[in-house]
Amino acid sequence: MADLTKLNKSELQEILSSLNKKYEDFVSRNLKLDMSRGKPCSEQLDLSMDMLEYRAEPGEFKTKSGMDVRNYGLVDGIPEAKELFAQMLEVSPEQIIIGNNSSLSMMFDTISRAMNFGVGEGSVPWCKQPKVKFICPSPGYDRHFAITQLFNVEMIVVDMKADGPDMDAVERLVSEDEAVKGIWCIPKYSNPDGITYSDEVVDRLAGMKTAAIDFRIFWDNAYVVHHLTDCPDRLKNIIEACNTAGNEDRAYVFASTSKITFPGAGIAMMASSENNISMAKKYLSIKTIGPDKLNELRHVRFLKDMAGITAHMKKHAAILKPKFDLVLDLMESELGDKNIASWNKPNGGYFISFNAMPGCAAATVKMAADAGVVFTPAGATFPYGKDPKDRNIRIAPTLPPMNELKTAMELLCTCVQIVTIKKLLEL
Amino acid sequence: MADLTKLNKSELQEILSSLNKKYEDFVSRNLKLDMSRGKPCSEQLDLSMDMLEYRAEPGEFKTKSGMDVRNYGLVDGIPEAKELFAQMLEVSPEQIIIGNNSSLSMMFDTISRAMNFGVGEGSVPWCKQPKVKFICPSPGYDRHFAITQLFNVEMIVVDMKADGPDMDAVERLVSEDEAVKGIWCIPKYSNPDGITYSDEVVDRLAGMKTAAIDFRIFWDNAYVVHHLTDCPDRLKNIIEACNTAGNEDRAYVFASTSKITFPGAGIAMMASSENNISMAKKYLSIKTIGPDKLNELRHVRFLKDMAGITAHMKKHAAILKPKFDLVLDLMESELGDKNIASWNKPNGGYFISFNAMPGCAAATVKMAADAGVVFTPAGATFPYGKDPKDRNIRIAPTLPPMNELKTAMELLCTCVQIVTIKKLLEL
Repeated sequence: MADLTKLNKSELQEILSSLNKKYEDFVSRNLKLDMSRGKPCSEQLDLSMDMLEYRAEPGEFKTKSGMDVRNYGLVDGIPEAKELFAQMLEVSPEQIIIGNNSSLSMMFDTISRAMNFGVGEGSVPWCKQPKVKFICPSPGYDRHFAITQLFNVEMIVVDMKADGPDMDAVERLVSEDEAVKGIWCIPKYSNPDGITYSDEVVDRLAGMKTAAIDFRIFWDNAYVVHHLTDCPDRLKNIIEACNTAGNEDRAYVFASTSKITFPGAGIAMMASSENNISMAKKYLSIKTIGPDKLNELRHVRFLKDMAGITAHMKKHAAILKPKFDLVLDLMESELGDKNIASWNKPNGGYFISFNAMPGCAAATVKMAADAGVVFTPAGATFPYGKDPKDRNIRIAPTLPPMNELKTAMELLCTCVQIVTIKKLLEL
Repeated sequence: MADLTKLNKSELQEILSSLNKKYEDFVSRNLKLDMSRGKPCSEQLDLSMDMLEYRAEPGEFKTKSGMDVRNYGLVDGIPEAKELFAQMLEVSPEQIIIGNNSSLSMMFDTISRAMNFGVGEGSVPWCKQPKVKFICPSPGYDRHFAITQLFNVEMIVVDMKADGPDMDAVERLVSEDEAVKGIWCIPKYSNPDGITYSDEVVDRLAGMKTAAIDFRIFWDNAYVVHHLTDCPDRLKNIIEACNTAGNEDRAYVFASTSKITFPGAGIAMMASSENNISMAKKYLSIKTIGPDKLNELRHVRFLKDMAGITAHMKKHAAILKPKFDLVLDLMESELGDKNIASWNKPNGGYFISFNAMPGCAAATVKMAADAGVVFTPAGATFPYGKDPKDRNIRIAPTLPPMNELKTAMELLCTCVQIVTIKKLLEL
């Protein structure tokens, strides 16, 4: 088969009727598969079981500073966890706070804090300002957009390019409008595009002139060590870049071990300038007496050091790479020559971003759902759940076993062809 | 020795000079003791070490609904944790949310939510209202007051009586002023008084007419199972009382296992009407994908059921009761007949509340600190850190070993006598 957009109507009709038959076959199988979220699979979770193997001797529960992790205290985490994860994020231990299990919560709290108290000494709380807007490079992460929407922040879509957000658009927006207070970024193996920002993009983000003096970059480095290949992407250090540009307090960096150890029992972290960290700690010490320090110690003893993290992540990659390859190979063989879709080939992260022809994403996802396979809702990767071109579908290959993944992707390829051909027939 | 207030100046001078000598002895010992916080001692922490003994078999990590606790999900906690702690708080599992390790964080977030979004569908966010005031029965918990102060909530002191807050004052305040939106309560073995609210107080709180339609009770049931005797106090169920009174959504209940298992690695919870819980869950599901469910499972497997919790708390009491007795016996023997101080004898909780003569608390705490023993700062038990009568000192007997506790209390009794006699000599 060749380029579908070059076929005439009767040729398309013929293909459509054979695809419809194929689809009916899927429907008759009563499938019930979930491809909607970027969840690790059981085999990945099993990699960290040794972390739970404790020998319960009381003496084992001291930090190197002599503090009993079982008791109250240490609002920003235990020293050894700060040291290890500061290395992972390429900052100093003074620039990091270790939280509980959710980096999303830390982002939520950082926005909530900015709303109620402003971003720094003497800055005006965002809720007291007439309007707050965020730049949302899209497609992006639906849970980011849900937070800003909840706080009534107006979200402005900026396109993702091959090396990060469209920086011409970003620079124009931040320079013109004082209400633009922030930007959401997943700078490495982005969700869903799998893109890693280029050094130029990082430098432009760090250095751009913003009309707002309280502008902040929300740098969700969720996939910082989540490589799929032996030649991982390299991301420039945003905090250093901000320092160099004289905008020391511009970036909040977030990460977690949710996809290193356990999504349900990992630890999260936030890094920033010492200024920002010290302000965050001031509020944090009113909110809590400390995070779960036992879980921090557990993590440090299990992962040990950066070499330990790297070795552990290679085990994840060994499980995930075949799944990504299966999806990519299937798409190539089913759709490669048909000129109706494009997709990325990420070097890491959790997603493959699939772009159908404009106007075809929602109908494709619905058809798949009608046949029992749930994908992330079309539009979810855009603010307000609205993909202006209705073409992006986020594929999450990590959770399903290989055989289910194969079925789900065959179905998706069938659905997208049916939907596209119907569209072409209407033209 | 007898009633100090009945002695003449030369008698007082004589006692003072012998007390001064005693104080100098303490100073020369170079003490370094901390009596400032209600932290469990190591022996208490050791009681829960078995909780950490896992056999790391993957199959062990499923909830009874079949969900893998290691993975994402279940924003309000695992079913078995909800069931167990719903029993502890005498609510239904639909009325509870299990959080991470800090109930203080859940209180902070509940106030933050009320500020930003209001307390229920269609209610006006507190931050959009001209003024928000909270009733603060005092002495009370400094960390409560720090939260309301941070959010610029005006705090109104109401006296604690023998059976709870002065309800005549509370009823007057809430009925007169629409800006009064909440009250902080530690209803059982209160911090620091050790008082348990009477049924009448609970009913009046539940039933009182409030000018504000969005008034809420913040019911910090921190010491719900933290008895020191075999005849524990009984607290009336506030949520049921609110239901009976037709004010279903009035009470937010908080608790944690911080002082059941580990302060640094427990689990916290919030209970309320199904209405309030469903609203909290709506926001929570934007803030996080779920709490640390592994730690919940760990807790449920260790504590098992209410009988397990009760048996476990008896072990805590066996460690704590001698410490409380030591403090109380020492105060009785050193100060019992002198008519210069009073204190409570709690049946549970973490504190002994000590009242010196007005104007004597700060100076007493300072003298003790100068001799190397840190008590909770005088005034800390009142909003804005200001005890209007400067008489309350919170004594936290749980952390220090018995010998240190004895030294610290002997010092405190010496200091309070010196300060009081100096005061009497000035009169």
